Amino acid sequence: MNPKPIVILGSTGSIGRQALDVARSLPEHLRIVGLAAHSNIELFAAQVEEWKPAVAALWNEKSARQLSEVLTPQARERTQVLVGREGVLQVATHPESRLVLGAMLGAAGLEPTLHAIAAGKDIAIANKETLVAAGELVTGEARKHGVALLPVDSEHSAIAQCLVGEAPETVARLTITASGGPFVGKTREEIAAAQAAAALKHPNWVMGRKITIDSATLMNKVLECIEARWLFDVAMENIDVVVHRQSIVHSLVTFRDRSVKAQLGVPDMRLPIQWALLFPERVEGGSPALDLLCLPNLTFEKPDLERFPALGLGRAAMKRGGLFPCAMNAANEVAVEAYLDGRIGFYGVTECVQHVLERHESAHRPAEALSFPEISCADQKARHSARQWIAKQ
Amino acid sequence: MNPKPIVILGSTGSIGRQALDVARSLPEHLRIVGLAAHSNIELFAAQVEEWKPAVAALWNEKSARQLSEVLTPQARERTQVLVGREGVLQVATHPESRLVLGAMLGAAGLEPTLHAIAAGKDIAIANKETLVAAGELVTGEARKHGVALLPVDSEHSAIAQCLVGEAPETVARLTITASGGPFVGKTREEIAAAQAAAALKHPNWVMGRKITIDSATLMNKVLECIEARWLFDVAMENIDVVVHRQSIVHSLVTFRDRSVKAQLGVPDMRLPIQWALLFPERVEGGSPALDLLCLPNLTFEKPDLERFPALGLGRAAMKRGGLFPCAMNAANEVAVEAYLDGRIGFYGVTECVQHVLERHESAHRPAEALSFPEISCADQKARHSARQWIAKQ
Repeated sequence: MNPKPIVILGSTGSIGRQALDVARSLPEHLRIVGLAAHSNIELFAAQVEEWKPAVAALWNEKSARQLSEVLTPQARERTQVLVGREGVLQVATHPESRLVLGAMLGAAGLEPTLHAIAAGKDIAIANKETLVAAGELVTGEARKHGVALLPVDSEHSAIAQCLVGEAPETVARLTITASGGPFVGKTREEIAAAQAAAALKHPNWVMGRKITIDSATLMNKVLECIEARWLFDVAMENIDVVVHRQSIVHSLVTFRDRSVKAQLGVPDMRLPIQWALLFPERVEGGSPALDLLCLPNLTFEKPDLERFPALGLGRAAMKRGGLFPCAMNAANEVAVEAYLDGRIGFYGVTECVQHVLERHESAHRPAEALSFPEISCADQKARHSARQWIAKQ
Repeated sequence: MNPKPIVILGSTGSIGRQALDVARSLPEHLRIVGLAAHSNIELFAAQVEEWKPAVAALWNEKSARQLSEVLTPQARERTQVLVGREGVLQVATHPESRLVLGAMLGAAGLEPTLHAIAAGKDIAIANKETLVAAGELVTGEARKHGVALLPVDSEHSAIAQCLVGEAPETVARLTITASGGPFVGKTREEIAAAQAAAALKHPNWVMGRKITIDSATLMNKVLECIEARWLFDVAMENIDVVVHRQSIVHSLVTFRDRSVKAQLGVPDMRLPIQWALLFPERVEGGSPALDLLCLPNLTFEKPDLERFPALGLGRAAMKRGGLFPCAMNAANEVAVEAYLDGRIGFYGVTECVQHVLERHESAHRPAEALSFPEISCADQKARHSARQWIAKQ
């Protein structure tokens, strides 16, 4: 069997690098035909040298032009180096690839994902903001073009794995597990005083900075509920979050006959990444085995909405629908950055999001799908409004 | 949609009665066309009156003849009452049914199951001895006649549910969970002294007497490993038993990519029974919902071979193959009866089985499938040998 030709968008990020680890351990199963990233020239150049893709692009135009100078003459000959937004879109739609891993950070991932879908590529979706901001649009396009949306998030991968071979109408509930993040055992006062360094120390998962803060506020779980709502076409009121501190059970599905299926594993992103890249194949890869006899006791608890207000906020935004989830996501991105820079406190993140949502003018339009320009505009407005709020703190 | 026409063999036993509960809660999905049982006239007569099957048979010929006298004239007109072995085989192969639930106790379930398979019926298999004694034969016949073997045991149902939609060659390990039975926290001395009444108090499951004792000796788990080996075509060395005292996780499958899937639920046999009777349909039934937030901590422990020698014994019998598992099962049936009657002690059960296996003369014939007469003969010899050993105690 020939290795499956794939493209990685966001190859220098946490998921992108781990996806390349997976590809490195499975040379007979995966071949990299295109890479794209934002602006990390040094790492990206090394990736281009190693993986010899047909095409490579950096989103940041200045960085893209510098890249050519850094690459060896052989790499410049082998790989077509592309520049900026146009370049990334070309990588996303490269004719040779069968699947595109969408792992670019934040809202930037949406446009290339839409182009890849239109070009008929299956999508391994690691950019949850894509579905949060534009779930209706993206899933609609995927249906239209007959491509698969394969989740990379461990929670959604768990759900997708539990749903393999089951009829969609038999699903009664989805239960997304949350480790609870670094602050799970802390009081509200301790959390309020926490500096970014503490929030970045996640107990179970090694992840990017943005997502680690989202996991401390539990905004991560809000985004995941919304993502699940679109990926699996399950109503929000049938999606729960439970705190499962051990991060062994990655999520659960309850069927209408009351049977519950769960997917378990060592907390290691390589497994869900591999699953999404190779579906429906399962091959032996580099993921560590789960030893049931060495597990801690497995527990499930109700999340505390008082200490983690993001959960309530997110549910409200989703209930209002339309462009609210998009605005929430955009405001959250800006607020997390401000928190990481020390410009606002921990609870400032959710306060900022709440402020933006209160001001957000949005038509609630459940009947029609939102278009890319509408989404893009709501995103920009929410960012602007978030920046204004932060400047006043 | 018309209700699915089914036959229940062993309708007065624990599984049979619960299957009728399921059918009672799903009149639009299930219709009973045939019932068979051993000799419980009173209950069987009530079932025939309620369910109005086309055919009904009692295995015990004397009971069968008495049945006609007990039934109302209307029931006698509606339902053809059949007698003995021949009668049960006629019920098992009744042309109207699409599926036969094989829930007769012990080795008596084998022959009717084989006849039902040959008649092209899907089998909901609740009689684990059928697969233990004759797994190779039964699975071979099922393949030959293109019928499905749907497990009813909660453990095998869990595994089957986890395997839905997955390619068989991707399975790396099966892990069967054991509650540990009533003696899980007891010392060897306490266990040795236990009377049948204590062994019959299972902490989590309501089951028949025979299976409850098997669950105290853990012989149940041995039978389940062998059953799993045949049902799922997985080598014995890739099947584990772990003690999971809470009986919430009903079993687990590890795939070769290290992903683990599990099925969970309230310990209630109606769910796996319903799943087997209705597969691939899942409908809302009478099974209670699992509330993750009210669960005890979930734990997994290694079983203790010293206190529960049946596990080692079973693995050895399976390793020797051929007629050894059949002999083990037969000896166990006789020994459990003797223990229930107070003729031997708790550890007498496994001692008896060990004695019979040591004496058992069996050709190890992995290459060819065993025939029904060979199996039947080995079963009889092992029973005889077990009775002799018990008489000497």
